Amino acid sequence: MRNLLLYLRFDGTAYHGWQVQKNSVTVQQTLQDALETILRQRPPVTGCSRTDAGVHARSYACNFHTEHTIPSENLVRALNACLPGDIAVLSCREVPSSFHARYSALEKEYLYQIWNAPVRDPFQRGRMLHVPCPLDDAAMDKAARYFLGRHDFASFRAAGSSVTDTVRTISCSQVRREKEQVFFRVRGNGFLYNMVRIMVGTLLYTAQGKLQPVDIPAVIDSLDRAAAGPTAPAHGLYLNRILYDEAT
Amino acid sequence: MRNLLLYLRFDGTAYHGWQVQKNSVTVQQTLQDALETILRQRPPVTGCSRTDAGVHARSYACNFHTEHTIPSENLVRALNACLPGDIAVLSCREVPSSFHARYSALEKEYLYQIWNAPVRDPFQRGRMLHVPCPLDDAAMDKAARYFLGRHDFASFRAAGSSVTDTVRTISCSQVRREKEQVFFRVRGNGFLYNMVRIMVGTLLYTAQGKLQPVDIPAVIDSLDRAAAGPTAPAHGLYLNRILYDEAT
Repeated sequence: MRNLLLYLRFDGTAYHGWQVQKNSVTVQQTLQDALETILRQRPPVTGCSRTDAGVHARSYACNFHTEHTIPSENLVRALNACLPGDIAVLSCREVPSSFHARYSALEKEYLYQIWNAPVRDPFQRGRMLHVPCPLDDAAMDKAARYFLGRHDFASFRAAGSSVTDTVRTISCSQVRREKEQVFFRVRGNGFLYNMVRIMVGTLLYTAQGKLQPVDIPAVIDSLDRAAAGPTAPAHGLYLNRILYDEAT
Repeated sequence: MRNLLLYLRFDGTAYHGWQVQKNSVTVQQTLQDALETILRQRPPVTGCSRTDAGVHARSYACNFHTEHTIPSENLVRALNACLPGDIAVLSCREVPSSFHARYSALEKEYLYQIWNAPVRDPFQRGRMLHVPCPLDDAAMDKAARYFLGRHDFASFRAAGSSVTDTVRTISCSQVRREKEQVFFRVRGNGFLYNMVRIMVGTLLYTAQGKLQPVDIPAVIDSLDRAAAGPTAPAHGLYLNRILYDEAT
C-alpha cells in the first residue's frame, strides 16, 4: 500500500473550507472527485488542517493510501488537468506508511495579508483585507512579538470551541510592511479554531490605538475571548507552509 | 463646465472591455451607471483606449464634462462606494476644458504577464498567461528590442482592422523575468488593434525557437499579419499607465 503526500495551492474564495460538508463545495471533496476520475477509486484524503470558508493556501499538505501504481509525476499532471483552475497540485511523493498529514506536522505557518491604502485594489479583492485608514505597522509588529513562546491561548479561540488543551507554542510572529501591503506571519506547533484571525483582529486594535502593544500579555493571561480583538475576515488568511520531520 | 480626469484600476475578467456595447457589461457602462447614481446626470465618459474583453488596467484614464460642483475627493469616495469591487477609482482632478483622455495622450504603456512554471498558480488565474514549458526570456528580450523605434506595424494588427496609418513609435520594449514570472513591458505613441497581444505571440515564438530574435525586422518589414506569431490571450494584458503632457 502506497502512502502519497500531495502539496496543493488553492484560492479558497469559492470553497467552504477544506473539509467535506453536506451541501457545500469543499477542497477535499473536489480533490477526492478528481482522484476518483483518475484512479477509479475514492481513497479518503487526510488534510493537514481544517480551513475556514474563503481561506487560501499557498502550500497545503494532504495524504492518502492507495494500491494504484500510477507514477507520482503522472498523478500531478492528471490531477491538474482534472481540477478546476483555483486548485493546483504542486507535487506528489511517496512517504512512509505511518505518515499522517495532520498528526505528523511539526509546525504550521500562516500569513495574513492586508491592503492598507485609501482605495481598494481590484486585483487583491478576496485575497487581502482592505484597511483604508493608515495602520501603525511598527505597533503591530511590537504587539506580535508578545505571541512568541509557549502560552495558553484561550483568549484567542472562537467562543464555543470545545478543545480542552489551549496551550500552544509560537516560534515566529512578525508584522512587515511592503508599500501598501502589511503582512502578519505566524508559525507555531498548532493553532486553535480562528486563532490567527483573532490574533489579527487584536493586532489591528493595537494599530488603531485601541490597545497598546504592552497590553498583549494581559490579554493572553486573561484567558478570556472578550479581552482580545475581533475575528479578522477569512479572505486575508493563507496557510503558507507546513513543516514535517525531514525523514518523511 | 468642469472637465474631470479620473484614473481607474480594474480587473477586466468580468467585462467585455471598456466601451459600451449592447447586451454586454462593460467598464464604461458600469462607471456611467455609478456617475448617474451620484450626480443625477449621465455625462458621456471618454476613455483613453478601447480595451478587449478580459484585459485589465492598473491605471486607466478617462474624462467627462459636468456642471456638478461635487469636490473631486468626494466623488472618488462616492464612486468607490457605488462601483463593484473589481473597479476602483484611484483619483480625480480637474483638467483644462480641451483635455481629451484619448487624443491628449502622448504615450501608453502596456504590461503582459506570463506565469512560466510547470504547474499553474491559482492566484494568477485570469491575471497571467500560464506557459508550462521553460521560456527563453533572454531571447524574448533580444527580440523585443527590435520593436523599438518608428516602424510600420501592419504585421502586428488584427486581420480585417481598417486603420490606414499603421506607423507607430515604440519607446520602451523589454522582457524581464522574476522567478516564475515573465513580463513584457511596451510603451509607445499608439497601438493598433491587438498589436501588443500579437507582439507577445511573436515573442513566444522566439522563446520556443520557432523564430529567431534576428527574424523580427523581417517580420515587421513584411507588413503581413501571417508573418507574425499568434494573438496571445487577453487575460495576461494590462494597460499599465498613460502619459499626458505635464500641463494637463
